[in-house]
Parts: sequence; structure tokens; C-alpha cells
Amino acid sequence: MSKPIRVTVWNEFRHKKTNAAIAKLYPEGMHGQIAKHLKTQPDLEVRTATLDEPEHGLTDEVLAATDVLTWWGHMAHHEVQDAIVDQVRQRVLDGMGLIVLHSGHYSKIFRALMGTTCSLKWREIGEKERLWVVEPGHPIAEGLNEYFEIPAVEMYGERFDIPAPDTLVLISWFAGGEVFRSGCCYDRGKGKVFYFRPGHETFPIYYQEEVLRVIVNAVRWAAPVDGPQINFGNVQPLEDVAS
Amino acid sequence: MSKPIRVTVWNEFRHKKTNAAIAKLYPEGMHGQIAKHLKTQPDLEVRTATLDEPEHGLTDEVLAATDVLTWWGHMAHHEVQDAIVDQVRQRVLDGMGLIVLHSGHYSKIFRALMGTTCSLKWREIGEKERLWVVEPGHPIAEGLNEYFEIPAVEMYGERFDIPAPDTLVLISWFAGGEVFRSGCCYDRGKGKVFYFRPGHETFPIYYQEEVLRVIVNAVRWAAPVDGPQINFGNVQPLEDVAS
Amino acid sequence: MSKPIRVTVWNEFRHKKTNAAIAKLYPEGMHGQIAKHLKTQPDLEVRTATLDEPEHGLTDEVLAATDVLTWWGHMAHHEVQDAIVDQVRQRVLDGMGLIVLHSGHYSKIFRALMGTTCSLKWREIGEKERLWVVEPGHPIAEGLNEYFEIPAVEMYGERFDIPAPDTLVLISWFAGGEVFRSGCCYDRGKGKVFYFRPGHETFPIYYQEEVLRVIVNAVRWAAPVDGPQINFGNVQPLEDVAS
Amino acid sequence: MSKPIRVTVWNEFRHKKTNAAIAKLYPEGMHGQIAKHLKTQPDLEVRTATLDEPEHGLTDEVLAATDVLTWWGHMAHHEVQDAIVDQVRQRVLDGMGLIVLHSGHYSKIFRALMGTTCSLKWREIGEKERLWVVEPGHPIAEGLNEYFEIPAVEMYGERFDIPAPDTLVLISWFAGGEVFRSGCCYDRGKGKVFYFRPGHETFPIYYQEEVLRVIVNAVRWAAPVDGPQINFGNVQPLEDVAS
Repeated sequence: MSKPIRVTVWNEFRHKKTNAAIAKLYPEGMHGQIAKHLKTQPDLEVRTATLDEPEHGLTDEVLAATDVLTWWGHMAHHEVQDAIVDQVRQRVLDGMGLIVLHSGHYSKIFRALMGTTCSLKWREIGEKERLWVVEPGHPIAEGLNEYFEIPAVEMYGERFDIPAPDTLVLISWFAGGEVFRSGCCYDRGKGKVFYFRPGHETFPIYYQEEVLRVIVNAVRWAAPVDGPQINFGNVQPLEDVAS
Repeated sequence: MSKPIRVTVWNEFRHKKTNAAIAKLYPEGMHGQIAKHLKTQPDLEVRTATLDEPEHGLTDEVLAATDVLTWWGHMAHHEVQDAIVDQVRQRVLDGMGLIVLHSGHYSKIFRALMGTTCSLKWREIGEKERLWVVEPGHPIAEGLNEYFEIPAVEMYGERFDIPAPDTLVLISWFAGGEVFRSGCCYDRGKGKVFYFRPGHETFPIYYQEEVLRVIVNAVRWAAPVDGPQINFGNVQPLEDVAS
Repeated sequence: MSKPIRVTVWNEFRHKKTNAAIAKLYPEGMHGQIAKHLKTQPDLEVRTATLDEPEHGLTDEVLAATDVLTWWGHMAHHEVQDAIVDQVRQRVLDGMGLIVLHSGHYSKIFRALMGTTCSLKWREIGEKERLWVVEPGHPIAEGLNEYFEIPAVEMYGERFDIPAPDTLVLISWFAGGEVFRSGCCYDRGKGKVFYFRPGHETFPIYYQEEVLRVIVNAVRWAAPVDGPQINFGNVQPLEDVAS
Repeated sequence: MSKPIRVTVWNEFRHKKTNAAIAKLYPEGMHGQIAKHLKTQPDLEVRTATLDEPEHGLTDEVLAATDVLTWWGHMAHHEVQDAIVDQVRQRVLDGMGLIVLHSGHYSKIFRALMGTTCSLKWREIGEKERLWVVEPGHPIAEGLNEYFEIPAVEMYGERFDIPAPDTLVLISWFAGGEVFRSGCCYDRGKGKVFYFRPGHETFPIYYQEEVLRVIVNAVRWAAPVDGPQINFGNVQPLEDVAS
């Protein structure tokens, strides 16, 4: 039997503390709800970490024992320490998967890995979103229908200032007239990065079956591969070089 | 436990019949040797099929029961019936994986799926090839070192007239001075296609550990995903459209 | 001063002959209207060709003197001779640009170059389309705003069964709830292919400024480059190979 | 007639000051030699800038008046001020082209735009390099043959820790046994980035015709496009949203 995939669900976890409606919707935080679902999967081993823990809960030990990290942040991106961001980035380049959720598009870690601003359009009127699968053979599309709908969301619209995804899996339609690249796969170093748009602190999106399904699929897709150890730097020739 | 991946190893299987040296190297055909190795993997269920069987061994029943098809052909590409090629292509677009080996670059099925000539440079002097992993986090790189060498090969050189791969995993170096995109991943329809360069009827390449490892990795990567059923054609609107 | 880009505007040109409304909208055919606009550009040299001309107007001489070919067809794709399709494809692989318009997605030439079915969803109720630019630095986006709208269109919806574009420039939003990859760039051989969704025989779409702008931009982008002459086949080593 | 492309050739320009052999090879610096060639092109308007000028020669005025920036650095990457790097990056995302040369792979600006370490293997024994064109229809391949050779170079070998290029134009073969992705195109924001491997302070590489040709081609390819002005942030709906 394969080894379980060790997932760390990271959450900024500030909204809940300051907003009663959010606290009611996600009494254990969004990380609590996501982790709860991931724990129902027999191949996943799940822990959580949050901003206000020491080292944001992302110590060397935790990172070393994490195969896939999921990231949700919004109001406190700037409070994430640069040194921790650097360590997370290095872990991704060394093979750890990273699933960036919703407002995490503007996190330091996502922007550092993308190299662009990751800016976008947004609107918060609770409109309908419909996510279309455009790459139906991709592992992240497993178990989905051709599209799924979320009845009330914060809208994110194009232009989304990201590098073109290595694979684009989902495109969103919004009632207000925009579209968005909502499921974006990247290879960065030996690691895999997936950006997934849905999720907001005031809507019950992380209770929706299709959304949870995508997150589980993405975790499995992003799990590290036992690929080659890479040696950088000065090397000797492998062939006789005539001189 | 997961269902096994059902692999069909297809071979033109003509060289052996006409050439004693090849018959000695691959007494059961190249397909026999590849299948023998695949059968050592507990998650794979393996059969073979060859050109001279009825319907080239690729009946509707066989194709319907195939998750991943591997393809080796060389001197008799033109003898593969167009109707069979069409059926294989449709199966790929419906989700079946396809692993195209070596001279299979010029098969009808690969050219039909690529849309280009798939032409290349070649030379048969038994020179050294070194394959470098350029995407070390890809599932097809699992268990490999940074590079592996094959002591004596038929060379294939760029320009290789293919669409740019969706993911490029391996680049070859040849002693005679050429390079080649030797491990190329494509999404086509719901299916995945992997072109893998090594392999030749007069060299013992399909006995080499790294080569067999790549084929096994590719089979697992190309296995179908249970993604959405796609409905094409005329559809009703999902929203009220003002008129 | 640079040499002009020689454009051939190809049209099936059957609808107009059988339908009075279409004949009124495009009295000289859609090709006539597109060609008329292209002729206003000083760097373009424009001719037209249609299905019912000998060899569909695409003789060896015409193809040899064409830098970029635009293609519109719908009801008579099957009447285009395979031999002509093969010649057009070879010219594309040799460097000629190809701009495929609207229902041309289902033409023999586009399907042959893509290798997939190129199927999609469609609906003809005259709903609104809004095209968003997702790659604003691309030459095909020159002179556009962030989005443009077409008031009444035939809808095309995902899943569009194409290879992932090498560059995706435009995504459409439709009032009825679908999205579509509407501006898709491909490198095939030495040629460039652009698929552009808008255009329909019963709507005045090829009179709209933004649509014409995209076609002009695409023609310039797809113009051939004086790149290397490629030699395929058997070659001598460029280095001394130890034996 | 089109407006000229305004090019700024940036060079660290330290080696020459400390090493007599380099000073002899490039008496006006590598930037001097590159600029001298670019100035022979009637469509280019060329200036230079170096590390030891105030603000590294990259003031707001210079950047605002630069369409394409070429970058060579090696021993003093760490001396480039972060504030200048941020400004250059923002200009690229706003549309300025960036051509990164040779050891510039490890510059702050390239690493910031890529998001990865940009590490590689290297060796300095003056071996032969042969660069193969793998995308012969790309504008950067204009005027080249199928390959070109540089007789004596510093080797750079894979794994090159970069995101997969949006388009890969050149692959290098080295006498010592390595390969390298040597001509890599990226879209980042509204800007285009091209990494080009050749060039070294102790070899006369920037006197070689093919190398200069690639740089000129890359400058033209990377020139800004007058695409849409992007508005990020909070937006009103474009459609009536039922509530």
C-alpha cells in the first residue's frame, strides 16, 4: 500500500475572530472545515496551521513533513514573514505541492512563485458562478460533471495577471459578465502549484461537494514525485573534450 | 484497492520474422519483452497485439478493454488500416492513454493525433545517447537519475516536426552532435499521449532498466481519469437570455 | 520597406446563394466583406477564393503566392477535396499562416492540423457575447480594449475539443451561461494557426470594428518568418563518433 | 513608417575593469559591442546603461523611454538595488521587453520574474556548443540555419531550474555531454522575456553573426504591443444580476 499524502491546511484565520457571521459559518475556521473533509480520505494524513501560531505553524519540522500545503489568506498577507515565505518557496521547488485558494492569489508565496502581480478584478455582490471543465482528462477533473455552479460568490474577473498556466483546467462564467481562469496548474522546480478560485469567508463554499472534490483531486495531483536529485553548480565533462 | 491498469502492448512484429539477429535479441518480439516487464508490476494487467492478427489485434473488444496502448512500428506503418487508426484515435480522444515508442513517431496514429509530419533526422551508427530529465517533478521522471545513457542507438535529431509538447520531460544528447525532444507529453481529447524516443530492433534497449522504468511511469501517467462525460452539439441556455 | 503580406480570403460561399437574408447582409459574400477591410491596410495584398472555383480557388500557384490564408466554411466542409486539404496543410507546415474563422472549427483543414474532433456546444438564439483579452501583450490584442461585445451571436461553448492552445488570447462569455476559448494560437510546422470564434452568416459580425481588428492583427502575427530550411532524413554525424 | 524600437543595453561592466584580457576582447565593454551592432539596424534606437552609473543607469526616465532592455550581469548581481529591480519588473509587466543574456540567468530581475532559482550546471573549459532551432517558424529564428556552432564556450547544462518556457526556440548540445534550453520565450504581464544562453566575458561570442542575429530578432519580438489598458480592482457588473 502507498504511503499516505501528508497535507497541511494553512489558514490566515483572522476573519472568524473578528466577524460573528464568519464564525458561525466556519466555527472551526475554513481550515477546520477543509481539513475535516480531507480527513475523510483514507490516503490523506491531515494537519492544520495558522498565521498566529509560532512561525505561522510552518516550522522546519512541519514543512519537512508536508507533502502538499493548501493556502488561504486574505486580510493579513503582509503579516506573513518573508523568511517563512522563502522557506515555503524552497520546499515547493524541492517538490512539495501547493494549493492556493481564492484570495490566496494575492499571498506573498503565490506572487513569489509566479513572478507577476497576480492582480485581478473583483466584486462582492453574491452573484452566481459556473465553472466549466476545459481539460476533461486532467486528474483534477476526476469525478466532476462538465460544469458546476456556486450560487453566490465573490467574483474574480480577467485580466488575471499570472503566467499562462502550464495546464488550464477550469474557466469560470459569472452572472455579472466576466470570465476567469479558475483552475490553473503550474510546475515550479520539482513542485506542483494549483490555483483554485472558489472560496470566500462569507459563503458556504467549502461545504460544497464539487469544490471539496477539486481540492482533494488537486492534493493528489500535487503530491511529490520521487524524481531525480538535481545537482547544480560546477561539473566535470561526461565526455572527452578535444582541446 | 484500485483497479488495475489494462495495458495493450502493440507491435508491428515484422522485423523479427525476417531478420535472425533481431529474432535472437527479441525472441518473443519487442512486444513480448516489454509486456514481460510490465507484467512484473502488480498494478498492471497486460496483453499484446500485433499487426498480422485480425484487425491488427485491435478489435472493438480489445480497445474497449484497454486503458493504455503502447505502439511500436517501423517498416509497415502503411499496412495499418485507416479504419483501425480511426478507432484507436477515437479511443484516445475518449480517454485511452497512448505511449508511442521510437519509430512509432511515423505511425499513422501518431501523425493523425499530432497533425504534423512528425519527420526528423536519423542515423544508424550505434552511437551513444544521453537522456537528460528537464522536468524532474513529473510523474514520468519517477525513480530516474538526472540523466541516463544508452550505449548504442539509432540517432533521432531535431528538428522534430511535432507540436510543442504540453510538457517536455526528456531531452537527448547524441555523440554525433544532435539533440532531440525524447519525452513528450500531450493532452488530446480526454486522452494522454507520450512519445518516448528510445528503442530499436537491433539494440537491446528494451532490456535497459531506465527505459523500462520510463515506460512503466508513462503507462501510469497516461491511465484514464474518470472525468466528465462531454456533450457536444446543440444545447439550451443555462440562463434566461433577454431577447 | 517590407514586402506586403499576401492574404487569400477563402470562403465556402454557399449560404448567400441559397438565402436572401444572408445575401442582403453580405452582398459580396463574407469573403468580400473581409477582403474589403483587409485591402484598407497598406501592408496587405489581398485576393479571395471560394469553394466552387476550380480546385476551390486554391491552385498550386495561389497557395505558393499566399502568405496567410483565412478560412470560413460551414455547410459544405465535406465537399472540400482531400487533396486540396493536404496541400493546404503542407503549405501551413512550410510556413503559411492560417486564420480559421467561426464554423471553420469543423473544417477538414483545421481538424487535420489539430488532430482532435474540434467539436463544441452551440446554440443559435442571437445572444450577447463578450470577449475578454487574457493575454494583453500579445500582438493579436493590439488596439483592443480589455473586452469587446458582440450584441447577437451564435453561441459556441466548452468543452471545445482542441489541443490546449500554445497561447490563449481571448475567452468569451455568453449570456446563456457558457464560456469559450475564442482566440487560440498554435505553431504547427513552420506555420502559425489562429482560431477566432466570431462570425456568422446571419449576423453583421464581420462589419464590427474589433472583429476586423483581430483578423488584421492575426494576419500580421501569422505571416511567415524566414526561418531555417529544415532537412529531414538520414544525416551524417557532425562530430567524430568513437566506435 | 513605424516608430523605432528604443533599446537599452545594460551591462554590469565590472570584469573589463579588473581583467586585461576581457578589456582587450571588449574594449568598450560587452554592452558597447552589442549596442554597436544594434545601432546598425535602422529600426532600433540604442542606448547603454551600466551598474556603476547612478541608479545603475536605469532612472525612471530611462526606463520610461525603453521599449526593450537587454541584461548582462555576472559577478555583481547582488549589488543591483532591490528598488531598481522592482521598477524594472514593473516595467516588464507593463509591456517592456527584456532580453536576459548568459550569466544574467542568475540576476535578481530574471529570478524575480521566473519565481524559481534559475540554477543550472556550468563548466568553463572552452568546449564547443551547437545550438539547434526547434521552433523554426518563430520570429527569433529568422535568418538562422538549422543550427549554429560556437567554437569555445562556458557550458551551461540541465537541469535549468526555470518554469517551462511558453515557447522553446533553441536547444544546445555541448561537447562535454550536456544539453540546455538556450532560447526561452515567456509572456509576463504585458511584457515579453527572452532568455538567450550564449555570451561570456572571455570569449568573442558577441562578435559572432548568428548570436547577434538572435539578439536583434529577440529585440524585435519583445517590442511592446499597444494592447489593452488593464484595470484591476473593484468593478461594477456589466450585466443585470438577479438578486
